Amino acid sequence: MENKQFVNEIADINTDFAQWYTDVVIKTDMVDYGPVKGTMVIKPYGYAVWENIQQYMNKEFKKRGVKNAYFPMLIPESFLKKEAEHVEGFAPEVAVVTHAGGEELSEKLIIRPTSETIICDMYSKWINSYRDLPMAMNQWCNVLRWEKTTRPFLRTSEFLWQEGHTVQASPAEAEADTQEMLKVYSDCLKNLLAIPTLTGRKTENEKFAGAVATYGMEAIMKDGKCLQAGTTHDLGQNFAKASNIKFLNKEGVLEYGYSTSWGVSTRLIGALVMVHGDERGLRMPPNVAPIQAVIIPIASKKEGVLEKCEEVRTLLESADLRIELDNSNNTPGWKFNEYEMKGVPLRLEIGPRDIENGVATAVRRDTHEKVQLSLDNIVEEVKNLLANIQENMYKQAVENFNASLVETDDFDTMVKEINDKKVALCYHCGDSACEKEIKDKTTIKTRVIHSYDNNHKCIYCEKPSKYRVYFGKQY
Amino acid sequence: MENKQFVNEIADINTDFAQWYTDVVIKTDMVDYGPVKGTMVIKPYGYAVWENIQQYMNKEFKKRGVKNAYFPMLIPESFLKKEAEHVEGFAPEVAVVTHAGGEELSEKLIIRPTSETIICDMYSKWINSYRDLPMAMNQWCNVLRWEKTTRPFLRTSEFLWQEGHTVQASPAEAEADTQEMLKVYSDCLKNLLAIPTLTGRKTENEKFAGAVATYGMEAIMKDGKCLQAGTTHDLGQNFAKASNIKFLNKEGVLEYGYSTSWGVSTRLIGALVMVHGDERGLRMPPNVAPIQAVIIPIASKKEGVLEKCEEVRTLLESADLRIELDNSNNTPGWKFNEYEMKGVPLRLEIGPRDIENGVATAVRRDTHEKVQLSLDNIVEEVKNLLANIQENMYKQAVENFNASLVETDDFDTMVKEINDKKVALCYHCGDSACEKEIKDKTTIKTRVIHSYDNNHKCIYCEKPSKYRVYFGKQY
Repeated sequence: MENKQFVNEIADINTDFAQWYTDVVIKTDMVDYGPVKGTMVIKPYGYAVWENIQQYMNKEFKKRGVKNAYFPMLIPESFLKKEAEHVEGFAPEVAVVTHAGGEELSEKLIIRPTSETIICDMYSKWINSYRDLPMAMNQWCNVLRWEKTTRPFLRTSEFLWQEGHTVQASPAEAEADTQEMLKVYSDCLKNLLAIPTLTGRKTENEKFAGAVATYGMEAIMKDGKCLQAGTTHDLGQNFAKASNIKFLNKEGVLEYGYSTSWGVSTRLIGALVMVHGDERGLRMPPNVAPIQAVIIPIASKKEGVLEKCEEVRTLLESADLRIELDNSNNTPGWKFNEYEMKGVPLRLEIGPRDIENGVATAVRRDTHEKVQLSLDNIVEEVKNLLANIQENMYKQAVENFNASLVETDDFDTMVKEINDKKVALCYHCGDSACEKEIKDKTTIKTRVIHSYDNNHKCIYCEKPSKYRVYFGKQY
Repeated sequence: MENKQFVNEIADINTDFAQWYTDVVIKTDMVDYGPVKGTMVIKPYGYAVWENIQQYMNKEFKKRGVKNAYFPMLIPESFLKKEAEHVEGFAPEVAVVTHAGGEELSEKLIIRPTSETIICDMYSKWINSYRDLPMAMNQWCNVLRWEKTTRPFLRTSEFLWQEGHTVQASPAEAEADTQEMLKVYSDCLKNLLAIPTLTGRKTENEKFAGAVATYGMEAIMKDGKCLQAGTTHDLGQNFAKASNIKFLNKEGVLEYGYSTSWGVSTRLIGALVMVHGDERGLRMPPNVAPIQAVIIPIASKKEGVLEKCEEVRTLLESADLRIELDNSNNTPGWKFNEYEMKGVPLRLEIGPRDIENGVATAVRRDTHEKVQLSLDNIVEEVKNLLANIQENMYKQAVENFNASLVETDDFDTMVKEINDKKVALCYHCGDSACEKEIKDKTTIKTRVIHSYDNNHKCIYCEKPSKYRVYFGKQY
């Protein structure tokens, strides 16, 4: 009964996925709309997910010698114009500061939509010799891109991200860096968020404004649409030339550096919701869950119940688990619904009978299975169960992912499949005009290149193929 | 010799403290100037200090139920105007976005100089009943205040900070919160940064624009000037009324909430430099040092030296110590200078003779003492030594702090002492006009109130005293 009542609060995931998404992120207190159109407030339950992502990434960055820093948010308008493609890509989306300190500024300042131009400007001062390379810094910050159509986490004017920027001594090292960071990202999605991804190079049409090559990581949502979940860019010498980053190489010759950049954003939170969520709300993989297990006292006024709950909480927390004990006046049934909707991976019910039997009753969010855990060995049993849930959720996500992929050589079939919530792997000629024609006609875009292949025909124009590429709809 | 050469790179701390500060923060790679006037780039060595502060604070916030969140950076201009004193205080310093997405905006947006107005606006939607209180969130973010005269870390247009915002159910709870957070801040400065502080209420003239009461934490720099290192504000019902934050209290009556806010910023990094630095550069207290110990191989090409250094590094790192091993081609002498300037608390030299004797030669940054540490017990010995350095640096800082404080009842003496690098504790009538006259005449301002006292005479106007208050020059 209680579940029924509860489920009614969020739209049906099968019939209205878009409304389901909005209901879930708002009603679980992950996010709210900000007062300025297109902005969001990331509430504690959403922000905690971001903090867990930050923690994971920071470790990976550190292992690879990438150091955190912070660069100014305001960029002189002239900087943006230094790289021709870059300004074309970003100028329409920027917010402009014209006045400050009560006066009109002599040069307009833009709020960073991304920081290549300002970071490369600083790098040009700091880099002199090959001994200074690679230079690799990352910043966690806010960025702003004025968007017409926005949705919490997925597309907002302001969002949070990390942007890594490196300068390397050779094209090979720059290229290797973009591959390495793409791997870091896809490993994060796999290990932390339990999300499988497609990774590969983006086509010329879809690359970053100013890059030589862009690599993308695509997750597939439950409605079959792709979500670009991270990108890495080989910028060649484009930004180095624009910002005059020169270094004395080992042969004593002055040379432009080879730069890269790469980023993931709070979009990942949206991906998490749309890959794992179900008709009851969120489902959080334990590794990233703000609350890994919630303890719910049953008949909490009975002697010893609350004490036992507190004891278990303390034990689990001292094992570095993220635990909540809900001792509020709400009924157990209300609490069951609440934490199901919030996607807490494990619920531990502890009542007089459980205590008598020396157990806690555990209910998994992923399978709804009920298991008795021994209170004597509660830390290990909870840890094992959480590991098992993490593994199972990844397995479920991989199944959905695989079920979303189709291969076809026929254009009409491709369109039909994609309209039927699929992602299609097809041969393509690699011609930008042909790709654009497909997009204009169907709103279907390429996602990432699967492999290079000259032995087939383009799915659309039937000229010789250049590569196999994933086509799909996107967020 | 090498030290001599090195010291010449930074200005003399005794004769030109201001230039010494700039030299130190720039040459140790903590910070650089950004391309827009008044902005700074926080480089990895400075940012790591900030990350250590964040880590400490986050634990303290969590213990007190304060949750991290993120609110939008852009605030509608109308929001700022909701609280009369607040707009008067901040309007002259704000940066204004007038255009975005290629169009002129219908309402101008300001970049947050602080977030009371936008956070209270959101709180008004989320708070309904006393059950929702206290509501306590914190955000780590950038803020912008257009400043005419700027210095890295101390005063810049954009800076990083944390701002905590709470709504409480009663004036007593709001007041208690401001006291509690002030204690958290001063404990952080004591335990992490080894900095003693003066804490207390600010006078009416010096309080936050829109607050009922502001409490401040003041650190004293080596040149005798005060640095406001953190503030907490009891906002009473001012912002609750402006933003319509109402809650149903336990008696079932609708009432305005009582809000507070509190913050510390990247200024703290400046305080760290100016409290502990010496003629050779930075001195980092171990608890906050980005590098707690640097290992320098001596005769690194001799067999076994580098291996031993690596082994020691691994041991120390696995004990969660922050260690650097400098195996570059620079001479040991060059390295000694470099890490002294960077203020690394402990240097470990390991050469063939040390290895033969089963020791590492440790040199303390705080006392320049040399000690032999047993390699067999290196983790514990390094840990003990670092704890000892932390304690000693706090002791040294307290000595300087105490030596800076004077008490006087004579105005001319006060001015003379303060001009002679002191902070003076004096009686004052509490009259804003009197306080302002002192400021206009001498540039000397009140720092924090020491205690309330009606039994003496004002140091300036000789009317009956209201309180004893610290006077000093400030950053």
